[in-house]
Amino acid sequence: MAFDYGTKHPLNREALEERLAAALEVCAAAGRVILPHFREPIAVENKADGGGYDPVTIADKDAEATIRAELRRRFPSHGYFGEEHGHEPGDGLTWVIDPIDGTRAFMTGMLHWGVLLALFDGMEPVLGVMHQPFTGEFFFGAAGNAGYRRGAERRDLHTRPCAELSAAMLATTSPRLFSTTQRERFDALSASVRMTRFGGDCYLYCLVAMGQLDLVVEAGLKPYDVQALMPIVRGAGGVITSWTGGDPAMGGSVVAAGDERAHAAALRLLSGTG
Amino acid sequence: MAFDYGTKHPLNREALEERLAAALEVCAAAGRVILPHFREPIAVENKADGGGYDPVTIADKDAEATIRAELRRRFPSHGYFGEEHGHEPGDGLTWVIDPIDGTRAFMTGMLHWGVLLALFDGMEPVLGVMHQPFTGEFFFGAAGNAGYRRGAERRDLHTRPCAELSAAMLATTSPRLFSTTQRERFDALSASVRMTRFGGDCYLYCLVAMGQLDLVVEAGLKPYDVQALMPIVRGAGGVITSWTGGDPAMGGSVVAAGDERAHAAALRLLSGTG
Repeated sequence: MAFDYGTKHPLNREALEERLAAALEVCAAAGRVILPHFREPIAVENKADGGGYDPVTIADKDAEATIRAELRRRFPSHGYFGEEHGHEPGDGLTWVIDPIDGTRAFMTGMLHWGVLLALFDGMEPVLGVMHQPFTGEFFFGAAGNAGYRRGAERRDLHTRPCAELSAAMLATTSPRLFSTTQRERFDALSASVRMTRFGGDCYLYCLVAMGQLDLVVEAGLKPYDVQALMPIVRGAGGVITSWTGGDPAMGGSVVAAGDERAHAAALRLLSGTG
Repeated sequence: MAFDYGTKHPLNREALEERLAAALEVCAAAGRVILPHFREPIAVENKADGGGYDPVTIADKDAEATIRAELRRRFPSHGYFGEEHGHEPGDGLTWVIDPIDGTRAFMTGMLHWGVLLALFDGMEPVLGVMHQPFTGEFFFGAAGNAGYRRGAERRDLHTRPCAELSAAMLATTSPRLFSTTQRERFDALSASVRMTRFGGDCYLYCLVAMGQLDLVVEAGLKPYDVQALMPIVRGAGGVITSWTGGDPAMGGSVVAAGDERAHAAALRLLSGTG
């Protein structure tokens, strides 16, 4: 558990733990901003014309503003990169924010969405939090560990073994995420696994970390869609890369697996080299 | 609100309300049986061999047994029809049970599953309950009304208007529910709506009732997959039929809509007459 970024920036274990505790608090605050807008009526016909009350946009923007304001008060020198309010450079450590990941799930009243917050050191996200305010769940990871909290419940997260694709449970948010070539490769993977489920966004990666799913395969992600999830998956013992095995921190195509054997087998099909 | 089944059986308003209250209690009891099995480790490799602890099957069977035992104590003459323990004929009123609708969601740790319980009078389900024990939610309908409870929260359910398919939000559990012809018709509908979402099972129908979704389209359902949801959708002001406009109580292809105009437009595409 090497956790001394020494010469690059002063993020020792204590500094990291302070930032993880703050990230959990700030995600909870964002959740309190979002929740009153969840399942509020959306006038679909007005919205198609661009008019009327839009609880999704309001919740998204207000939650990200809350996260930035709360973090700025605690850590005045860090930078920000978020879906709603763009990039503000800082001291080399950047808070990466998706105030509501799974916006389409949110706007249809479904449950698989969450607040995502990561701290990026310029090379990798060193901590990540996913918070679902309706269920009161927190999934988080840092420094090679991952945990779960809900009310008084606290537990460590661990992925489960999955040696063979034939035993794997695979999920993706939508079959429509993919280009034609990506779709062919995804379908080949799907034909090799035990079960494929659709829908889920950020929640899917947390379920890999929890040992409930074996593979998540997506494409077209943004940095703020994936960075918070990387320390959670990795801290639980999983693997998360691009479809060609590269670094997923900048988004694009992503494959997360609980077991490196299932990950390697999935990559062979997804990278087009299988 | 005609609610006197008089000559057929003695289910006046008071008798119906008594059975709805009992159904809510009994679903809560089933939820308490299920919840300890949710997100328990499943040894996927063992399970592929048919061996080992199977929390899904245990939860399913125990929950249905609980529902039958609790209802039998209260209403000794009614019959039962359930996914796990089959058919027991009774006095013409039948409790129709799916102890965990959305088994695949349940077994992957996702949230869109629930306990379904209907009371079928031989012609139609006269009450229906959907309970999600992890979130503590109850959706229910009877006698032309539908409601929602979660903790201290109580509210009526109402669908929202949706005059045109171009404004509609559509959902289905999986694109793989469908035959080739069904898939072509679903794809034609999907190409006509504003947004299509995947994943959800029973939860989707409840979101139509809540005015969060406009259309749910599925196929291959069993009677116990749909009967509890019919009074919820109808009680909230929605429409639920087969893809050809027929009675969906026996399962098969189902389309639920919050607005009869969206329903009619969807039927034109789904029935192959559009």
